[in-house]
Amino acid sequence: MDFHFEILKTDPTGARLGRLTTPHGAIDTPAFMPVGTAGTVKGLTQQALTELGVQILLGNTYHLYLRPGHERIRGLGGLHRFMSWPGAILTDSGGFQVFSLADLRKITDEGVVFRSHLDGSEHFLTPEKSIEIQQALGSDFAMVLDECIEYPADHARAAGAVKRTTEWALRCREYARANAAASTNQGQALFAIVQGGAHADLRRESARQLVDLNFPGYAVGGIAVGEPHALSCEIAAVATEELPKDRPRYVMGVGFPEQLADYVRCGVDMMDCVLPTRNARNGCLFTSTGRINIRNAIYADDPRPLDERCSCMVCRNYSRAYLRHLFQANEILASILNSHHNVAFFLDIMGKIRQAIAFGELAEFSSEFQARIQAGEP
Amino acid sequence: MDFHFEILKTDPTGARLGRLTTPHGAIDTPAFMPVGTAGTVKGLTQQALTELGVQILLGNTYHLYLRPGHERIRGLGGLHRFMSWPGAILTDSGGFQVFSLADLRKITDEGVVFRSHLDGSEHFLTPEKSIEIQQALGSDFAMVLDECIEYPADHARAAGAVKRTTEWALRCREYARANAAASTNQGQALFAIVQGGAHADLRRESARQLVDLNFPGYAVGGIAVGEPHALSCEIAAVATEELPKDRPRYVMGVGFPEQLADYVRCGVDMMDCVLPTRNARNGCLFTSTGRINIRNAIYADDPRPLDERCSCMVCRNYSRAYLRHLFQANEILASILNSHHNVAFFLDIMGKIRQAIAFGELAEFSSEFQARIQAGEP
Repeated sequence: MDFHFEILKTDPTGARLGRLTTPHGAIDTPAFMPVGTAGTVKGLTQQALTELGVQILLGNTYHLYLRPGHERIRGLGGLHRFMSWPGAILTDSGGFQVFSLADLRKITDEGVVFRSHLDGSEHFLTPEKSIEIQQALGSDFAMVLDECIEYPADHARAAGAVKRTTEWALRCREYARANAAASTNQGQALFAIVQGGAHADLRRESARQLVDLNFPGYAVGGIAVGEPHALSCEIAAVATEELPKDRPRYVMGVGFPEQLADYVRCGVDMMDCVLPTRNARNGCLFTSTGRINIRNAIYADDPRPLDERCSCMVCRNYSRAYLRHLFQANEILASILNSHHNVAFFLDIMGKIRQAIAFGELAEFSSEFQARIQAGEP
Repeated sequence: MDFHFEILKTDPTGARLGRLTTPHGAIDTPAFMPVGTAGTVKGLTQQALTELGVQILLGNTYHLYLRPGHERIRGLGGLHRFMSWPGAILTDSGGFQVFSLADLRKITDEGVVFRSHLDGSEHFLTPEKSIEIQQALGSDFAMVLDECIEYPADHARAAGAVKRTTEWALRCREYARANAAASTNQGQALFAIVQGGAHADLRRESARQLVDLNFPGYAVGGIAVGEPHALSCEIAAVATEELPKDRPRYVMGVGFPEQLADYVRCGVDMMDCVLPTRNARNGCLFTSTGRINIRNAIYADDPRPLDERCSCMVCRNYSRAYLRHLFQANEILASILNSHHNVAFFLDIMGKIRQAIAFGELAEFSSEFQARIQAGEP
């Protein structure tokens, strides 16, 4: 079944409860998408993802293009089949990674020349190339190549990125349509990305230009790149105001547990972030009463579960003392269990957010959640 | 329920089909025990071990004593509870690791002085200390401290180790009985270890001395320390001939998949080895047609499962191409899936060996298994 989006309910705050239908199953929104950079969500088997209730994950075009290569994945039947993942996949355009590289060589209207972080080889990423790769991967949601800028960026620079992003969005769509038959996923939907830095007029302008092109969904890019959280939310709200209500909105690369509901209240339906898995590998664990660094010696003899409010496999079975031991001993199981809990925690928040929207109680949920985190552990 | 061993059937080859009952469940023998050095079988969750049908695993006294410390584990309710493992656990004495250390300082009749591989601190391992640690851990099977020698070792040196091993076995048992109340597992059984190097007369002498002390089970130590496999089997056979038929026999630290049945035919009931997990982390995978190094470029586009005869979670879901990609990208999932398959493969062999004994067809199983490995991949 092809792409379809249905809004089931809107909360007084502006938050939306919805359902996205894809060729690889339905997604309850607002949704948090764990990041599976190189065809795996680090530390978790696909079986664990399914048990956790993950409906959609993110794959990184830049990483998969360099290794194992998109033509290899095409030959093996696309990314779903390659990684044996029955759920939905969203791929980014590769732009964010490329613009983050130290060895970025040159940006022109044509595209971006960059050097691989793996072997230093030179590559040229264009809007067309980004779509070619994403069609080979066969994700359910592909993203247009956008120009990502730093924060702060002045008005002229941000305006230039908006202009280029719209031009590139059009080229992406044209290439995607002309080469649709080459995609390993015939139900692939292409989302545009709103840019404009922290300038409200440019965000509105970018959104309007892209809406004129009539995409099935829209992302807000260039958020959480160093600006204060309140400003991130303002930017997201300004952008979503311009976007059609019947299309899904995706804020890229956010956020901390206590921030998720803020984006949802801006009318955002999808989010992704490496935080739960990356922090897990560093021993930083999220709980309902705040963050825990499991390396801390105070946990060495602590028989309690990580989070007494959490019902995930880790919190049901293992103590803080055991998790600390695994981390200190540099055991693989530390990464496995820490990643499992953190992803479970983010998914659980989103589940509670969806429930709160259904009952029209998102504001209450938000303030209780914040209060518990600020109070810390009893 | 306390320790109990029942032999259900004996094969014409001498192999025994049995059932070991422990305070943490029953174990079908012959059994292969995965090694959980530091309170975790590297790369596998306890949930995965259960799904794999693991009934018993091994914990290393040396590692757990140094980190997190046996008194810490005692305080947390023993090793089963610490690692949340409902099945049986066998702990070694710590002797093998200590004797393998470069910084081994001094061996006397009293015990062994060694330096920690973690921080260089000095420790003194005696027979009494080894039991004290194992009682704190609360394993279902504890092992006596034995003197481990290198191969080859001359008759005089091996005879000295036999004498000391018997003396230490007696001290271990005396300490274990006097301090039984201190164990976190009131059903803990203590096994003795036959030494004697490659000298048949000494192996017989060692076995007889230990049998006189009437232990509930016996291990054969100092096997697979560099001698040819045929000699390993000879040594095991000589030792088991002297051991009482109604007690379980355990050969420590073996072996390769094609060797397991050979030990079973010597009347061995239990084996352990780090091979499946250690090799997995290096990309060496065991299959029914031989070993595969998954790093090899020939697997880059190979859509087939690792082993078409294997029905484990990995072989049901993932291709060689995906496994190679994960290994090349240094992903945690590479260690997880590789370890899962290798452990499944070893357990599957033992299951087939038990079935073959039940049908009186172990010799046929062995020759077919060997033939398939020698023929290699079709």
